[in-house]
Amino acid sequence: RAILAEQAAARGIGCDVEIMSAIPMENQTFFERNFTASEMQHAMHPTTPNARAVLTAKWAAKEAAIKAVSSYQQEGSTPVWDGPAAALREIEILSDWTVKFAGRAAEAVKKAGVSKVQVKVSTSGSYAIAYAQAL
Amino acid sequence: RAILAEQAAARGIGCDVEIMSAIPMENQTFFERNFTASEMQHAMHPTTPNARAVLTAKWAAKEAAIKAVSSYQQEGSTPVWDGPAAALREIEILSDWTVKFAGRAAEAVKKAGVSKVQVKVSTSGSYAIAYAQAL
Amino acid sequence: RAILAEQAAARGIGCDVEIMSAIPMENQTFFERNFTASEMQHAMHPTTPNARAVLTAKWAAKEAAIKAVSSYQQEGSTPVWDGPAAALREIEILSDWTVKFAGRAAEAVKKAGVSKVQVKVSTSGSYAIAYAQAL
Repeated sequence: RAILAEQAAARGIGCDVEIMSAIPMENQTFFERNFTASEMQHAMHPTTPNARAVLTAKWAAKEAAIKAVSSYQQEGSTPVWDGPAAALREIEILSDWTVKFAGRAAEAVKKAGVSKVQVKVSTSGSYAIAYAQAL
Repeated sequence: RAILAEQAAARGIGCDVEIMSAIPMENQTFFERNFTASEMQHAMHPTTPNARAVLTAKWAAKEAAIKAVSSYQQEGSTPVWDGPAAALREIEILSDWTVKFAGRAAEAVKKAGVSKVQVKVSTSGSYAIAYAQAL
Repeated sequence: RAILAEQAAARGIGCDVEIMSAIPMENQTFFERNFTASEMQHAMHPTTPNARAVLTAKWAAKEAAIKAVSSYQQEGSTPVWDGPAAALREIEILSDWTVKFAGRAAEAVKKAGVSKVQVKVSTSGSYAIAYAQAL
């Protein structure tokens, strides 16, 4: 049983760092491809102090979530995202920072045997970091 | 039992990044509110190469610990820190980088069913990062 | 059993951040001491877009792995790396970002009861971060 616990802990972690200047704030196509309307509303809301920071944090969270799901290994499970990578907009970071998968990303997550992905983010200065755990 | 292992892994993680320039080195009130005398002694000790780096790392560790405890979910447990946030000085980062809770923070941790919080920190260039796990 | 799961999750985590400018790109001795020939080939390969970023990421991964193994606590196990620290070149980060221990590092890992160390890295702007878990 301790072995099982350790295997569980070993599976499905991901981390990510992103510099805020990497977000192309003027590029509409970039946002349409990578963020949902709901995510854009959260980031661009008048009460959000720093839209760029929120978008970078969501970006880092998406990347960390992909890494966590991709490295999740359940015995007998089939490889995840072995075809072209899922679009980042299919990995939605809600305003409470929980993760919601849609489309092909949701299928990949299901296929991997992942029931939930927990992410944590933080921003400071010019950077956002994220940590994700797939369960 | 594997489920239990996964639930344990899911609970109570937090990460944080802080830019060192965010620490107001001249602001005595800031330090009195957020750091214990023991923490200040550790940071300001003649053998400590970089006081600002140590203070930023402790700050990041405190923030990561708060996030880890806040996201810790035990069935039937009551919400943690639902009132005003605990003062950061109640989350003490000892010189061996273990975490010690006092006052209202200690009460909140106990109420959450958390027995221990493990933190790891690292500093480089202008930043400190921290990772915490509540158990 | 839940206790076992929590103990497993508690053991052996490490994180690290490194600024890319800290890598002394002209210092041959530094590389010989800290990187294997295989690591250098990976970083310096014509298809690697940014050698400095890869070397910094490997460096961060090595540091995170050391911290994870050092904090791994199994009941009755003897202390790890209590003598002079193992040379970083004994902690090899392969091109698929798995970790391979050699020499004294491998002995220390074995002595600690660690069967595997999983690392994740990310680079952006001027920094690399790494997260490691010892199992």
